Amino acid sequence: MDAKINTTTNTTNKTIDPYGSDLIEDYEKIITDFGLEKFDLALFPQPNRLMRRNIIFAGRDLKLISEAIKNEKKFYVLSGIMPTADKIHFGTKMVIENIRYFQEHGAETYVLVADLESAAARGVSIEEARKRALEFHIPCYLSLGLDINKTTFYFQSQNREVVKLGFEFAKKITLNEFKAIYGNADPGRIMSAVIQAGDILFPQLINRMPGIIPTGIDQDPHIRLTRDIVRRTKEKKFFLPSSMYHKYTPALDGSSKMSKSKPESFIELPEDPKSACKKLNRALTGGRENQEEQRKLGGVPEKCMIYEMYKQHLIEDDALLKERYYLCKQGKVLCGECKMFACELMTRFMETLTKKIDENRHKISKVKFVKFDDN
Amino acid sequence: MDAKINTTTNTTNKTIDPYGSDLIEDYEKIITDFGLEKFDLALFPQPNRLMRRNIIFAGRDLKLISEAIKNEKKFYVLSGIMPTADKIHFGTKMVIENIRYFQEHGAETYVLVADLESAAARGVSIEEARKRALEFHIPCYLSLGLDINKTTFYFQSQNREVVKLGFEFAKKITLNEFKAIYGNADPGRIMSAVIQAGDILFPQLINRMPGIIPTGIDQDPHIRLTRDIVRRTKEKKFFLPSSMYHKYTPALDGSSKMSKSKPESFIELPEDPKSACKKLNRALTGGRENQEEQRKLGGVPEKCMIYEMYKQHLIEDDALLKERYYLCKQGKVLCGECKMFACELMTRFMETLTKKIDENRHKISKVKFVKFDDN
Repeated sequence: MDAKINTTTNTTNKTIDPYGSDLIEDYEKIITDFGLEKFDLALFPQPNRLMRRNIIFAGRDLKLISEAIKNEKKFYVLSGIMPTADKIHFGTKMVIENIRYFQEHGAETYVLVADLESAAARGVSIEEARKRALEFHIPCYLSLGLDINKTTFYFQSQNREVVKLGFEFAKKITLNEFKAIYGNADPGRIMSAVIQAGDILFPQLINRMPGIIPTGIDQDPHIRLTRDIVRRTKEKKFFLPSSMYHKYTPALDGSSKMSKSKPESFIELPEDPKSACKKLNRALTGGRENQEEQRKLGGVPEKCMIYEMYKQHLIEDDALLKERYYLCKQGKVLCGECKMFACELMTRFMETLTKKIDENRHKISKVKFVKFDDN
Repeated sequence: MDAKINTTTNTTNKTIDPYGSDLIEDYEKIITDFGLEKFDLALFPQPNRLMRRNIIFAGRDLKLISEAIKNEKKFYVLSGIMPTADKIHFGTKMVIENIRYFQEHGAETYVLVADLESAAARGVSIEEARKRALEFHIPCYLSLGLDINKTTFYFQSQNREVVKLGFEFAKKITLNEFKAIYGNADPGRIMSAVIQAGDILFPQLINRMPGIIPTGIDQDPHIRLTRDIVRRTKEKKFFLPSSMYHKYTPALDGSSKMSKSKPESFIELPEDPKSACKKLNRALTGGRENQEEQRKLGGVPEKCMIYEMYKQHLIEDDALLKERYYLCKQGKVLCGECKMFACELMTRFMETLTKKIDENRHKISKVKFVKFDDN
């Protein structure tokens, strides 16, 4: 049993839903406020874990991508690496898994290394950013399931087309439109945003086709800006970029988002399994005041960060996840045991990831990069 | 005698000054309003025609460059080519002549081709911009006196250092500071301006040294912005860029600035001599109401666009210019003859320029470009 017992738990759960959660963010409100589409599971064949479990909750123009998959038409999926740190977050892991989903369903896959942005905005030199991308981020993306033969990478600083698009797009938006989307309009933010719009649309210069950006909801302003720009550059005949949003991985203390600012509630990828397990052991759970009550009333997995980690990351198999849910719900497992099980899964995951990153680091010469003609 | 006689001419000229002019722009006011230094001829050895004749009227931190010349220290001169048109203006000719002055006095010389800007802002593709630069602008710059062995060119789109600097600088300025300098702050203008600041400082990445930008006064906002940025990036130890400003070449009808918007008052480089002479023939002069009066009172070269063309562009030799001045002033030459003489000089200039451009076009493979490591 844990010290951080949630005593305000409502024990009369309205519906039993192993994919539901009762966390802080009001995702319904986000959907309404930003005019998003609610994610419709029926749109996508063989949905991945994140889709099936309602962790993907919204998007924009998802039908465009659904149609492309169903009709076997060309489309792309794109994401970016910010090579400032030598670790990634669980949020990035979700992005990679979603890229992988679209890659497995026929998408041309582009992953850019934002070395320009990292050099300018975060003080990591282009050389250092590039080194980190080659030695860690790209191997890590491959280790989390991207196909080395089907993924094309590029360095932002080498892609003059993206800078050129950024330049062009900057002329298409007014300062007030920018403020309406971002809340403020610092010159640095403007420059980053228009270059990012260039990145988002770049694959359409290679092949005119729809594309999807799987990302966290905090990145939606970039998607909105890019869509506004597309509407304003009709002569370019860009497709409006689609997007797909995942919920946050909550901090282990139950606050809204796992973040470096709370190191005890935050697990990095990769992280030493001992350190990760220590953090899991301190996580907020949906346990009762004492063992007796828990055996009698059952736990509340909807309030439990360990269960959330199972659901979002640690358990791939739906039947096994359901089993964990009912074991808790029916009081058949106590929080201590459950945390040990989570620790086992986490240890296996971290060890496998570390091993794969090391293997993929040795395959770096086989990674495909966009070739830029520099004449 | 010309149809466009200026009848409001004040015949009692306060001072006789062959390098004075009575044109529209109030350059003294500009100096005060923008906190410029008045150009001091004593600062520069062997001043060029534009310096000697008071056409260079102001600058910023000119002493820094003066010291570098006198002490034979490293410094640079930089300018940019906007390769949108296949002609240049007389204003650009002045810039080139000033670059040449500093080149002859020891400056490392950089000329960038703003292909990124031309592609984004002016709708000329990077490929087309590059073609125009190689086939016309670079040969033209060489033809107007730049030394092919001492001038280094680069294409903005290939220079990731400049884009990186632009990114970094964008984070250093606020929107309000930007507005204070430029009057407005459209995203497109912001992006162009920070990249331009990157261009202005780029040579200091190669060699830490002071540098000067000779330009028209309308470009001073870029200089001010760049100087503000330098003050804010102290860790970079950039020298504040110096600048040197020339007066406008007035339109042939006497309005403030020769501009394409008034094609009859505007001569391009190169232009067919017949067409150029036709325009000279229609120019505003400082002639009197009739021949008799002109013989008696003399003309007013200070009000004459033909004389202004002599002074700024057509007559290199000071003694010859003085002669033209007194011939007019003393009523010894009438406007018709004087225009014929101007036409002769213009024809010779255009023919020589056209011939040299053609020769230099064949030397393009010998032109030096900055080598960018793209790994």
